[in-house]
Amino acid sequence: MDEEKAEIAASHHRHPRRDTLSTDTDLSASVEKVFSSKPVLPWKQQLTVRAFVVSFFLSILFTFIVMKLNLTTGVIPSLNVSAGLLGYFFVKVWTKFLEKFGFLKQPFTRQENTVIQTCVVAASGIAFSGGFGSYILGMSERIAKQADRGYQHDSKNPHLGWLIGFLFVVSFLGLFSVVPLRKIMVIDFKLTYPSGTATAYLINSFHTPKGAILAKKQVEALGKFFSFSFLWGFFQWFFTGGTDCGFVAFPTFGLKAYDNKFYFDFSALYVGVGMICPYLINISLLLGAILSWGIMWPLIETRKGHWFDASLTNTVHGLQGYQIFVAIAIILGDGLYNFVKVFGHTIFGLYKQFQTKDSGAILPSDEHPNPEVSASQSFDEQRRTHYFLKDRIPTWFAASGYVTIAVISIITLPHIFHSLKWYHVLVMYVIAPMLAFCNAYGCGLTDWSLASTYGKLAIFVIGAWAGASHGGVVAGLAACGVLMNIVSTASDLSQDFKTGYMTLASPRSMFVSQIIGTAMGCVISPCVFWLFYNAFPDLGEPTSQYKAPYASIYHNMAVLGVQGFGSLPKNCLKLCLIFFIGAMAINGMRDLLGKKWARFIPIPMAMAIPFYIGGYFAIDMCVGSLILFLWQHSNRANADAFGPAVASGLICGDGIWTLPSSVLALVGVHPPLCLQVVPRLKK
Amino acid sequence: MDEEKAEIAASHHRHPRRDTLSTDTDLSASVEKVFSSKPVLPWKQQLTVRAFVVSFFLSILFTFIVMKLNLTTGVIPSLNVSAGLLGYFFVKVWTKFLEKFGFLKQPFTRQENTVIQTCVVAASGIAFSGGFGSYILGMSERIAKQADRGYQHDSKNPHLGWLIGFLFVVSFLGLFSVVPLRKIMVIDFKLTYPSGTATAYLINSFHTPKGAILAKKQVEALGKFFSFSFLWGFFQWFFTGGTDCGFVAFPTFGLKAYDNKFYFDFSALYVGVGMICPYLINISLLLGAILSWGIMWPLIETRKGHWFDASLTNTVHGLQGYQIFVAIAIILGDGLYNFVKVFGHTIFGLYKQFQTKDSGAILPSDEHPNPEVSASQSFDEQRRTHYFLKDRIPTWFAASGYVTIAVISIITLPHIFHSLKWYHVLVMYVIAPMLAFCNAYGCGLTDWSLASTYGKLAIFVIGAWAGASHGGVVAGLAACGVLMNIVSTASDLSQDFKTGYMTLASPRSMFVSQIIGTAMGCVISPCVFWLFYNAFPDLGEPTSQYKAPYASIYHNMAVLGVQGFGSLPKNCLKLCLIFFIGAMAINGMRDLLGKKWARFIPIPMAMAIPFYIGGYFAIDMCVGSLILFLWQHSNRANADAFGPAVASGLICGDGIWTLPSSVLALVGVHPPLCLQVVPRLKK
Repeated sequence: MDEEKAEIAASHHRHPRRDTLSTDTDLSASVEKVFSSKPVLPWKQQLTVRAFVVSFFLSILFTFIVMKLNLTTGVIPSLNVSAGLLGYFFVKVWTKFLEKFGFLKQPFTRQENTVIQTCVVAASGIAFSGGFGSYILGMSERIAKQADRGYQHDSKNPHLGWLIGFLFVVSFLGLFSVVPLRKIMVIDFKLTYPSGTATAYLINSFHTPKGAILAKKQVEALGKFFSFSFLWGFFQWFFTGGTDCGFVAFPTFGLKAYDNKFYFDFSALYVGVGMICPYLINISLLLGAILSWGIMWPLIETRKGHWFDASLTNTVHGLQGYQIFVAIAIILGDGLYNFVKVFGHTIFGLYKQFQTKDSGAILPSDEHPNPEVSASQSFDEQRRTHYFLKDRIPTWFAASGYVTIAVISIITLPHIFHSLKWYHVLVMYVIAPMLAFCNAYGCGLTDWSLASTYGKLAIFVIGAWAGASHGGVVAGLAACGVLMNIVSTASDLSQDFKTGYMTLASPRSMFVSQIIGTAMGCVISPCVFWLFYNAFPDLGEPTSQYKAPYASIYHNMAVLGVQGFGSLPKNCLKLCLIFFIGAMAINGMRDLLGKKWARFIPIPMAMAIPFYIGGYFAIDMCVGSLILFLWQHSNRANADAFGPAVASGLICGDGIWTLPSSVLALVGVHPPLCLQVVPRLKK
Repeated sequence: MDEEKAEIAASHHRHPRRDTLSTDTDLSASVEKVFSSKPVLPWKQQLTVRAFVVSFFLSILFTFIVMKLNLTTGVIPSLNVSAGLLGYFFVKVWTKFLEKFGFLKQPFTRQENTVIQTCVVAASGIAFSGGFGSYILGMSERIAKQADRGYQHDSKNPHLGWLIGFLFVVSFLGLFSVVPLRKIMVIDFKLTYPSGTATAYLINSFHTPKGAILAKKQVEALGKFFSFSFLWGFFQWFFTGGTDCGFVAFPTFGLKAYDNKFYFDFSALYVGVGMICPYLINISLLLGAILSWGIMWPLIETRKGHWFDASLTNTVHGLQGYQIFVAIAIILGDGLYNFVKVFGHTIFGLYKQFQTKDSGAILPSDEHPNPEVSASQSFDEQRRTHYFLKDRIPTWFAASGYVTIAVISIITLPHIFHSLKWYHVLVMYVIAPMLAFCNAYGCGLTDWSLASTYGKLAIFVIGAWAGASHGGVVAGLAACGVLMNIVSTASDLSQDFKTGYMTLASPRSMFVSQIIGTAMGCVISPCVFWLFYNAFPDLGEPTSQYKAPYASIYHNMAVLGVQGFGSLPKNCLKLCLIFFIGAMAINGMRDLLGKKWARFIPIPMAMAIPFYIGGYFAIDMCVGSLILFLWQHSNRANADAFGPAVASGLICGDGIWTLPSSVLALVGVHPPLCLQVVPRLKK
């Protein structure tokens, strides 16, 4: 579900960002005319060593951030702007430096910038589709014990070795399955790919003179808040010596509210995330927290002894069961609704495309009028199409690549997961290219990736197929990983191709960059996860700072898949049904009432997350919203230009602080102090 | 010493402020030409009811602020800008409101503004010269017990009744003694009165169209930070249930540093004060803290058993004795140096004035070239002199007023303080007018009021005269109060007359406003003090939030006066001598090396304060400096225009929060939580 959450956050935000970050350069006229004086280098020269060095370090940075987000709440915003700004900044510094000493052989072009962006997105995408906070951790013994549904034996603990192997055999398939389709998607169908387009606008704007000045200022703002956020994380660390110690456990609204998970936890990371996510997401999170921890759980708590055994309150057979399964119900309801909707769009869109093709005219999709197609921009289009088609990647190459990796994968995977049989994998790989195409197409139309929904489908189908007595839980979760990786990579990389199309980057250089980025991700992500996993032994526990809520949710979904509703607490199924239908109904209302009213209707998926882990991060994110709101009211232009940079600074600073903090934990350096709030002391 | 501290802070700051706040209106040309179209109302019409209503509420606000500062550290910055901005704001709102409904009879003039300013300064001045944090509290049994020098019987506990009576009989004398001299000071001698001049510039700038716009923005900034500061105070309150609880006891730099009083105590008040005080003051405070609590006290602590009895560490016979007496030594050394210096200036200035007068020419003082005297400004001068001399106050009126009050005072005071005899008072009242004149003159030349130095003189002289066995401690402290009040009022009111001169306010309206303001102060200040005194029973204790450090310092000075150096701990006298001479030497260096180097040499007086109470407030103030410094570097114009307003907001918000907080304490509502930092908890 993580992805869908992330995609919600992203899709709602990318559109406005495109307007704001490009205001300084009038991109509504022909962009390529502005750049016509600049030569486009051959594809091999777009792939520079410096680009991959910068990509490598940025990939580590963003892997840490994404991993921390994965393991704390699972809410992941779009980090494209941060990656874009930082990538631009580092290469710019590098080239300036070389220029000064006369060593500069090749100027920094927007194609090179696109290569960096693509590489970082591919690498940090793995941190996310690798499922370290969801299916990987969900199949561990630790989570199985905690879930206590009798599947402790049906588990597989994470280990660095097999994690890297697993990722290598599944992560490249999506890439090869999408390569032959790129022309159809980008040139023939002229799909919008809002995120890819936004990234392209960003990169193009950096390379205009005016845009470069703005970018410099944005980088300064980012740097300032990066330092602040890092130092704040460092400062906080000293006071966290003990359970419930430190600012992360500060009962801002009193102890009673703290017990119900309502407090501001002073996390610069989530305040930054809140500034990037649209208001509606943050409000939905808060509403979800109020509905669950403010109303429902206290009410259910009073039924202790009737609805659940009083001695089992803090287990999955008690209140926690309600929390997890109601959240799952909402997530599945929302997921199903959007699956039907986006899939419907996809089919309808394809039907129209082929109709149009038959009649010979080029017509934009009616849903998202393509901004690229207008008479005044035919110059842009011509030039872009020219460069996009110049360097071809032969279809036989892609096809043979896919088959080779699939064969390796079919042989290898059953050795990693014993309950996952070779025929399970084979079936998936036969269907996968179609699903990858559907997802890439749907994402191009709506900016909505259904990767995690396909993953959940795999949990239920493969889990049930393998069967409860034959390790169905691990098999289901592993299958989820296989499918999610392919489908998610396919949509990500299509976005990249769109970006490349709009910045005249060669498809070949994009492809190579994606290969390298994916390879980096397959090594970096497991290593970073491994660091977290060893540094924080309570990772995944409900009392930990790293709750990894989706691990439990995915595990319980897998159990549900092999076992059915059998062991749910009393009335839980009823509640789940209500919320399952409710989630679909609310989504339906959002679509029926139109944009004007939809912005006042909460998003069920966002409401579900606090159901299990509580509202504290929702409060952080609302603080971020509030800051942005006040800033926009006092100085709109300023807030629009620097808001994303400030948010990125806050996110990156706190995110990278987790590196030293987990190293300190690993080597056994404990914080010296404990900040705690206790009831009044009697004198 | 409080006053001198305050005056240091004020004098260093007022000069730059004058430049910054008037940048928008080019006041270097003729000010009065700008205002020539506006009529000057007769003096009775300058005294409006609304002005005094506004003054009353502002007086309460500023009394709270000054009282809190008095009772926490004794460092009091110049609050003129805050008072000016708020006074302007309230009357402006009032008149706008009436104007809207057509009720406005009289527009808001700068003369009326001057009346408000004068009234508020007079009233809140009493909060300060009333000595609630110094001589009044210093003669209480509580402080005497703590000082433990055998003068517990020689004490007088504060009580609302006699406090009001005492202030009424001593506070008006300064006023009457300075009235006959105002023409000599302002017109004949053309003294600068930097503070008064700065205030006049401020008021004049408010009433130009451009200045009004800036003032509106400044008021907005003030309001914003006022709210923030108030809410922050409110928020902090919840976590202070117990000793060493709350953000005020937060060991920012670790527990070891906290034990040595190095921590940031999150006080918006002192951050604001730090923003108003010049960098040098804040750095001096910090240096003092490092020298004393960082080096000297830990070293002396190791001599426990040798230099003082180990069992008496936390009494005045132990380490605390060193702390208090070294601070006194520095304060007296610095005071003596500056007394000689300013007194010398005064005598030399007077000598020159009379010489000049004899030769018939008007010459500005060489020390402070008077900006008013230049050919282009003769129009201003003519007009100002005209209005200043129009409404005279007869000398016989002032003289008979002085004599009447002096007689009442001579009869009353010995009834309040039994050890203070009528002849003590009579002698003081005979000398007082001369001292008042000297102080008013010196202040006009150097902006430095010697009030507290005269007060200390009285402690030693009258204390010794009354004698140890005849209640010399209380007599000395009471005499200090009498003299300080007269001398301090005299210089304050001379500043006001200068302000009035430059804003064409009538001397009569100024005089009436001063009378009313002083009367208000005589009632408001004791009431506010009484509220604090009852709400916080530990007020004056070294462990209290309200340490009132000057109470102990004044008490011990009085004991020193009647008893000599007898009971000081071993080596303490030696140390005191070193610091006494050191303070004079450093001051000498500051004067010898000239302005260029003086700004790198710390001010001994400022260094002395942390010797007793520690460095936490110095850290707050340095944070304020740092904020201002960074702000000035990123946007100089902005920082100069809004820095004082932001600082005022921080000061006023936290200051006024003490009203509800002390009311809560009085009615027995205790904070519900305790925030504490403890060493790491073992799991």
